[in-house]
Amino acid sequence: MTPLIPVVLSGGAGTRLWPVSREALPKPFMRLPDGRSLLRRTVERAAALADALPALIVTGREYYFLSRDELAGARTGGQAQYLLEPVGRNTAPAIVLAALAVASRHGEQAQMIALPADHLIDDEPGFRRAVRQAQAAAADGWLVTFGMRAERPATGYGYIKAGASLMEGVWRVERFVEKPSLATAQSYVASGDHHWNSGMFLFRAGDLLAAFAAYKPELLRAARACWDSSRDQRVAGDAIELQRGSFGVLESISIDYAIMEQADRVAVVPGAFGWSDVGAWNELAEHFAADERGNRADADALFVDSDGCFVYGAGRLVATLGLKNVYIVDTPDALLVLDKARAQDVKQVVDAVRAQGGDQHFHHVTVARPWGSYTVLQEAPGFKIKRVEVKPGGALSLQMHRHRSEHWIVVGGTAKVTNGDREFLVGTNESTYIPAGTRHRLENPGTDPLVLIEVQSGPYLGEDDIVRFEDRYGRVVAPTGG
Amino acid sequence: MTPLIPVVLSGGAGTRLWPVSREALPKPFMRLPDGRSLLRRTVERAAALADALPALIVTGREYYFLSRDELAGARTGGQAQYLLEPVGRNTAPAIVLAALAVASRHGEQAQMIALPADHLIDDEPGFRRAVRQAQAAAADGWLVTFGMRAERPATGYGYIKAGASLMEGVWRVERFVEKPSLATAQSYVASGDHHWNSGMFLFRAGDLLAAFAAYKPELLRAARACWDSSRDQRVAGDAIELQRGSFGVLESISIDYAIMEQADRVAVVPGAFGWSDVGAWNELAEHFAADERGNRADADALFVDSDGCFVYGAGRLVATLGLKNVYIVDTPDALLVLDKARAQDVKQVVDAVRAQGGDQHFHHVTVARPWGSYTVLQEAPGFKIKRVEVKPGGALSLQMHRHRSEHWIVVGGTAKVTNGDREFLVGTNESTYIPAGTRHRLENPGTDPLVLIEVQSGPYLGEDDIVRFEDRYGRVVAPTGG
Repeated sequence: MTPLIPVVLSGGAGTRLWPVSREALPKPFMRLPDGRSLLRRTVERAAALADALPALIVTGREYYFLSRDELAGARTGGQAQYLLEPVGRNTAPAIVLAALAVASRHGEQAQMIALPADHLIDDEPGFRRAVRQAQAAAADGWLVTFGMRAERPATGYGYIKAGASLMEGVWRVERFVEKPSLATAQSYVASGDHHWNSGMFLFRAGDLLAAFAAYKPELLRAARACWDSSRDQRVAGDAIELQRGSFGVLESISIDYAIMEQADRVAVVPGAFGWSDVGAWNELAEHFAADERGNRADADALFVDSDGCFVYGAGRLVATLGLKNVYIVDTPDALLVLDKARAQDVKQVVDAVRAQGGDQHFHHVTVARPWGSYTVLQEAPGFKIKRVEVKPGGALSLQMHRHRSEHWIVVGGTAKVTNGDREFLVGTNESTYIPAGTRHRLENPGTDPLVLIEVQSGPYLGEDDIVRFEDRYGRVVAPTGG
Repeated sequence: MTPLIPVVLSGGAGTRLWPVSREALPKPFMRLPDGRSLLRRTVERAAALADALPALIVTGREYYFLSRDELAGARTGGQAQYLLEPVGRNTAPAIVLAALAVASRHGEQAQMIALPADHLIDDEPGFRRAVRQAQAAAADGWLVTFGMRAERPATGYGYIKAGASLMEGVWRVERFVEKPSLATAQSYVASGDHHWNSGMFLFRAGDLLAAFAAYKPELLRAARACWDSSRDQRVAGDAIELQRGSFGVLESISIDYAIMEQADRVAVVPGAFGWSDVGAWNELAEHFAADERGNRADADALFVDSDGCFVYGAGRLVATLGLKNVYIVDTPDALLVLDKARAQDVKQVVDAVRAQGGDQHFHHVTVARPWGSYTVLQEAPGFKIKRVEVKPGGALSLQMHRHRSEHWIVVGGTAKVTNGDREFLVGTNESTYIPAGTRHRLENPGTDPLVLIEVQSGPYLGEDDIVRFEDRYGRVVAPTGG
């Protein structure tokens, strides 16, 4: 058996899904009706492939802990390996570094399948059949792309024209086409031999590296230097942190431009397995059940005399009256109401928010941390209230604040508290107080989540008022709140 | 000079303005762009009338403290008197009891003007001119109504047909007409002598009582009994609490049906002074400035490619994209999005919410109390977090909870705390803890508002877990939270 390593490309803010998808919590972490995120679905889909090993996830440094939490309950998710990017650099650098990692661990004959973490596939058996065909072609040295049946004249995708048949289900790629005009797209749909470029690829690691050597030798050389300087930079047992100096200089270019459109032995496996890149709210809405008037909701919604509406909610009651094809996306700090027909234009709103200097395009109210999460409940001059949840076994860093005191009230679980020289347990319904200038640490020694209410008070309450003395997640220097 | 007593009728949930107007915070408390509520505007408008004494406000028992707070800064608002209704009973009982109060305090010759607290009047000098004309007619014994110029064929109002001219600006009422059909309403607008019935009236107290004696003698007799049993039931120096037993039996009927449509000497003063009963969101929206595409907002709103939209907000960013005439009403716990053309039908939504068993039609997140207010920030099994604000000099009752403990963190001002047998001060950034079963009291001895975060924890956190021992607002028995 030739092992197959799923390389999951997990990044991209997905601004067309604002205000849910943001830089701080991008699209792969969005949840669907069954509660599973796009990332988790991608990893579980990959785990079911023939010959698949646990996934290699290429993601941003800032999404590492969040990804681990997200995948803790996923099939083989706990065995995933990570390559952590210090900055985003498009798909070619991510995939060539993944290829170097795969080759070094499993040999150049090992196959890898590149899977964006923010796609949906409804027909998983169909997907697995297509992958098996691609594996057969890759075993013959082909770089295989997956072409999706062009169901409508979409102008937002690139197209792949299939040429001669190579083997069952596999065609040679005649050419790649950039995003076409509507008229051209219509002719492609009519032709039947033009497929959407899905951004999924399958090849042997060695074949990809050979193609890089032929068509992007500079990028390959720089990627090897990055790999050499990074391969021993382990954050934890499962993650390698790509070094900023050697990674940041890599050319930001897509794998399509860099290799696929250049290389000689490129094949396409056409498929129609309910693929969607969930690029915008209208596409996401399709995955929710509709009532008899075509209204869909993820939340507590009440549609009165309304048709074709969609509510993606944040826990409040959302009521509509007399609306048609209006989409409502509700988050704790930002609300978007749009005409369904304008779903592709949400970026205009994000740009306008950015131009106004608002930070709603970036932050969420609940912030993930390696030890758990916190939610700012209220902030006002002189005080800030957070709900803090610490995972079993989690611990905040040993730290000190110069300007604020903190009151902790345990409302669930048990806290182990270090307060100056003392160490003690604080049970549910009990509280303690950390004066400004005191070294302290908060840990959850139990098996249930620790939930506490933290009330910070003082003249300055910025997250950067933190001096870290010790941190089990390697954050001793970075001033990023807890 | 004959004194004029403004009788302000302040009640009515105003369901067409849901989710902002609710049973717990009805329409008179809604704020307009300048921050003044409809109630405050009504009292200040009345205070500017010739010969006006401070207002007599007829309102629900539960709105007394809220009204006092609301009017504390209003012109003559601090001298207002109150009649407190234990239940709502339409306008006839409210106005006849007000007439009894006015007659007993100022004599039967005193004039009174009944003003609903939820109307807007843009042209106040015009309003004052109309009132002077009405005062002259009332001095001749007329019961005077105010007819608003019928600017459009509204089918939601009753109409008043003017007959013979009585004196400058005053006509005899020929007849009252119920809410008409559209065709009939169109003929009224064309006629020029049909006016909208505004629900405002002016008369001498004695003349109204005489009309009641003639046309509703039973109701008058019952109202006198209520007045006799209630007149000494003072809640504070400025309020009389109408007794539930004698008030609850009064016939629930409007003053129009009971008297105006029956009585002989009824006059109308037509006017056109920018009157609006702000009955629905489209009417309220008119009072906010529009941008060049007709969009209006009370809050942080961003209109992208949108026309004629309105945002009434709750502090979050609200963005629209590609919408036309969509109204968005955002509150912390409920969101309404509607087509402007359906603004009159919001009651359908309220009915649907009620049918679902939701309580969003009733409660608001911030609850007013005689001593200040509290806001529930978060509620979950085992804990509840409130932001509590106590006015200078305010004090919660001396109380005890059987099932919950309370943690108080002072984040502004200074608290005087009674905790069991001890009494002590808690300053800003300090905290204290009240175990379940301990008698306690919270007071604000200072001159600044006291702001504290209360974290309640325990197995049962209902507002009815309260045993009151002493309360300066007369609430020793009622279990209603603080």
